[in-house]
Amino acid sequence: MQMSKTWMPTLRDVPADAVIVSHKLMLRSGMIRKLSNGLYAYLPMGLRSFRKVENIIREEMDRIGVLELKPTVIVPGELWKESGRFETFGAGMLCAKNRLGADLVVSPTAEEVFTHLVRSELSSYKQLPLTLYQINTKYRDEVRPRYGVMRGREFMMFDAYSYHTDDGSLDATYQDMARAYRRIFKRCGLTVIAVKADTGAMGGTGSEEFMVESEVGDNTLILCSCGYAANVEKASCRPDWEESQNAAGNREKRPERIATPNVRTIEELTSFLKTTPKAFIKTLIYQASNVEAEPKPDSSVPEIIPRMHVAVLIRGDLDVNETKLAALLKASEVELASNEDVERITNAPVGFAGPVGLSSVKVIADETVMHMHDAVTGANAGDTHLIHVEPGRDFVPFRVADLRVVKTGDACISCGKPLYEKKGNELGHIFKLGYKYTESMHVTYLDENGREQRPTMGCYGIGVDRTLASIIEEHHDDDGIIWPVSVAPYHVAVVPIQFEGAMKAAALSITAELEKLGVEVLLDDREERPGVKFKDMDLIGIPYKIIVGEKNLPANVELKDRKTGTVRLVPVGEAAQIAAAIIKDELSLILDRE
Amino acid sequence: MQMSKTWMPTLRDVPADAVIVSHKLMLRSGMIRKLSNGLYAYLPMGLRSFRKVENIIREEMDRIGVLELKPTVIVPGELWKESGRFETFGAGMLCAKNRLGADLVVSPTAEEVFTHLVRSELSSYKQLPLTLYQINTKYRDEVRPRYGVMRGREFMMFDAYSYHTDDGSLDATYQDMARAYRRIFKRCGLTVIAVKADTGAMGGTGSEEFMVESEVGDNTLILCSCGYAANVEKASCRPDWEESQNAAGNREKRPERIATPNVRTIEELTSFLKTTPKAFIKTLIYQASNVEAEPKPDSSVPEIIPRMHVAVLIRGDLDVNETKLAALLKASEVELASNEDVERITNAPVGFAGPVGLSSVKVIADETVMHMHDAVTGANAGDTHLIHVEPGRDFVPFRVADLRVVKTGDACISCGKPLYEKKGNELGHIFKLGYKYTESMHVTYLDENGREQRPTMGCYGIGVDRTLASIIEEHHDDDGIIWPVSVAPYHVAVVPIQFEGAMKAAALSITAELEKLGVEVLLDDREERPGVKFKDMDLIGIPYKIIVGEKNLPANVELKDRKTGTVRLVPVGEAAQIAAAIIKDELSLILDRE
Repeated sequence: MQMSKTWMPTLRDVPADAVIVSHKLMLRSGMIRKLSNGLYAYLPMGLRSFRKVENIIREEMDRIGVLELKPTVIVPGELWKESGRFETFGAGMLCAKNRLGADLVVSPTAEEVFTHLVRSELSSYKQLPLTLYQINTKYRDEVRPRYGVMRGREFMMFDAYSYHTDDGSLDATYQDMARAYRRIFKRCGLTVIAVKADTGAMGGTGSEEFMVESEVGDNTLILCSCGYAANVEKASCRPDWEESQNAAGNREKRPERIATPNVRTIEELTSFLKTTPKAFIKTLIYQASNVEAEPKPDSSVPEIIPRMHVAVLIRGDLDVNETKLAALLKASEVELASNEDVERITNAPVGFAGPVGLSSVKVIADETVMHMHDAVTGANAGDTHLIHVEPGRDFVPFRVADLRVVKTGDACISCGKPLYEKKGNELGHIFKLGYKYTESMHVTYLDENGREQRPTMGCYGIGVDRTLASIIEEHHDDDGIIWPVSVAPYHVAVVPIQFEGAMKAAALSITAELEKLGVEVLLDDREERPGVKFKDMDLIGIPYKIIVGEKNLPANVELKDRKTGTVRLVPVGEAAQIAAAIIKDELSLILDRE
Repeated sequence: MQMSKTWMPTLRDVPADAVIVSHKLMLRSGMIRKLSNGLYAYLPMGLRSFRKVENIIREEMDRIGVLELKPTVIVPGELWKESGRFETFGAGMLCAKNRLGADLVVSPTAEEVFTHLVRSELSSYKQLPLTLYQINTKYRDEVRPRYGVMRGREFMMFDAYSYHTDDGSLDATYQDMARAYRRIFKRCGLTVIAVKADTGAMGGTGSEEFMVESEVGDNTLILCSCGYAANVEKASCRPDWEESQNAAGNREKRPERIATPNVRTIEELTSFLKTTPKAFIKTLIYQASNVEAEPKPDSSVPEIIPRMHVAVLIRGDLDVNETKLAALLKASEVELASNEDVERITNAPVGFAGPVGLSSVKVIADETVMHMHDAVTGANAGDTHLIHVEPGRDFVPFRVADLRVVKTGDACISCGKPLYEKKGNELGHIFKLGYKYTESMHVTYLDENGREQRPTMGCYGIGVDRTLASIIEEHHDDDGIIWPVSVAPYHVAVVPIQFEGAMKAAALSITAELEKLGVEVLLDDREERPGVKFKDMDLIGIPYKIIVGEKNLPANVELKDRKTGTVRLVPVGEAAQIAAAIIKDELSLILDRE
């Protein structure tokens, strides 16, 4: 491709709303342009790299035998009503009505459509397992789209759905996908961290997220040098019961009310009582929404309680992980109760709640609490606390579970070393969904004994745009992008110092030979100063430059590596062969590196 | 690919709403499944052929240097408001509001988005011409979607937009596109007819549609053995002035009112007067909407008249072509006026309108009328006609133009031979748009003299789904699809009579060798009766079958051509080579055939 024949409008300045590197560089190098908040168009240079990411995903799916489909982007609302998500998905789902008034959904995800297609054809266990995917347009009406294509409203997503007779089969596909994901990200030149993730409200049984480190990441990752990695929503740590012990405590004393006028916070209390936060049991009143009650023996459909309150107990130095709490309660959402509700439930002003004698709501305790002795709690009365409280004797929680927020310094659950935190962005996930959709959408097959069964299901996704932007986040310098060969818009740039005479002739012949060798070449045939050409090529990040200058001709040209900056002189007649060999080598190295 | 590892749910029976061959065969062969009215999902087998059509389009666009972009599918309503089409596009455009209440459009076409992207980067004439395309999801809320993907609501469209400094440049790109289209359709195995098309309300200066013959086509084509081809909306014919002569007529007589009680139709009149329809001037009152008035000298923006009436005159044996009329008037739409309007305008009951003395509306005459003599017309009075009417003397039309509907038997405008009609479906179009969008969306560039200018514009489109369905319409027999090699989901099917023993071994080795040779192979490894396997392969239309049976082993296998049904015995060890050579040959023949 000749520069003069493509459309690559580069920019010196970028709009103020571009704050992260990939957003800035994608605008500056003419890869993308903004159409509106959260809506970006890919221009030719950006689209070439975009398609390469897509193709890497396709090749890896082909390799593990996953089949590509193309459902519509606009799907009938009826299917979403069947699964129940038409009402529950929320404002992120863009809906429209057609001219007859029927509801349509602009796909934000596609569990419903795939499950519908599968149920229409599924009859026998012999057809399972079945794993299908698409790479297609999605739309989510993000409240605050930002960071360019990293968090846009319209995006391309790889999404796959698998159907199985049993958990073993689901797990095998789940593991195949995990391996394929690792190859995909490795081929894209990305360093990803696979973290255990919450499966909570979705009711799944296993989930991993593939994260890249990012200062502006949405997620907090809890990591250990031993390899342990989890989303903070899901992270566990080794219990620190000893921290819960009150060495000076007296387990025999009975609870005693003490006056604590205007003492509401942990800080005020520890200073007032001259003790530490670890001696205190925090009692937090939560409101949970859409809580799935235990199914009654005579019904297979669990009852959904729209709203309930619970009291959550945790050691004074710890915080409650609301995702863990929601998963425990099988609630769609949990949030701290309003002051009015707290006052009604505890019969006391906010700040004095405690478990002893609290009967109007169920009490849930973090497991650390049950190892505490001689503890301090609120007394459910204004300006009053209880001391000498003994968990298990003075109150018995309804449920005990791991509810703590794990943080830097906590002990790794697998090796005991201190954990540390990083911010990350999710590029992909794999998820054991279980029966959620096959139940609500009535999918069945006949097993070997002719009995009707429901398949279990997995779902899998990778954001294509976000993957592309993340490659730039990981591979750039002050001058611009440094594409890995596998996803570069072109492999080699041929840059004649001036596009005339012997330099032009050599540049054209090297370009032609490279193309014959299957190398993707961008020939800078513009009438620009050499400095401008070099700057542009550095900005758009072509991995190798062949610089054709008068001073080295007729014998040699320069071959420059964008990444290392190293320059070597190579004979004109061999330049194309040498560059082609390097490109081939880099592409195959990545492929074989697993 | 092994049959057991793909997902190809074939059907014996098809739903009643599938009436055309391609719809039936795409459902039966498991290429597509219906999600809802006008919404279809492509399954693996269908998607493979679909992608091949897409890729043929891409390759031919690459060849002529057109650049691919990927704008979003969901676009801001603001851009459509700028062009004015947010209000005028009609109910076919699917709109939604985001959570902030902003209007969004699910792209039915993309003039606005491309023009917006171009205007943001365009500064100098040096950047022109610029031609850009996408192959992307479109949605049009068809009133009556039918014929499967032939007329669906969501579809994939190739659409391109070009920008130029002058008409010569626009014409060059237009001709490049026309040639690329011919190659695309030829490579798809399609016989297309390029017809002149109406440019009417769009205000363009040239347009061709690429049609395929179809019994259920939306369009009527007017064709001649000399090669003349036009959409009936646009078709012209050689004038037949002699037909307008009234041999027995007396040009000297003055108009005379005659009583014609209850004679309203042409048939009643010709029988009453004992003459022929050709002696009669029909006067039709039309209502035109959004008529572009002549611009006033002091304004560059033409005034739009929302609604006006005109009287249209045409010879009694001919019909008015409403598309020609709308183009002449620069109206968005024309339709026959209501009875009330006719009575008000003519001061007479419906059926007695005539041009003589008609002053309340402008009179437009088809050119045939001006060659008539001693004609009969309505008299603008109940039960009354005028005879001895002389056009030009007794009335003078405001405009005279070609307004007739051309039909079978009319004389070809280029050779004079009789024309004939066919029904056709439009697969693609090319269109010289002119300044419509660059004016409304304020696109400018600086010319060589530093003066601000507007670019002129072309647009180009091909329906991918419809092209795919049309291939099946043209290539099938009673047993199923007969794919051209270029768009077949697989080139060769390897069918062992039984998948065991020597047959299995030979089938596997031939499959492996074919794949090594770059041939796309479908291996039927199912435990089915040979008859079932053959029927399925015929249904899905794989161009060549290699049949591995005990009776011919160990020496030979059969190579069967799906199209001709011919079978030849080939040595086992050469089967793959022979098949690969045939495939390569067919692919290159198509490429070189231009």
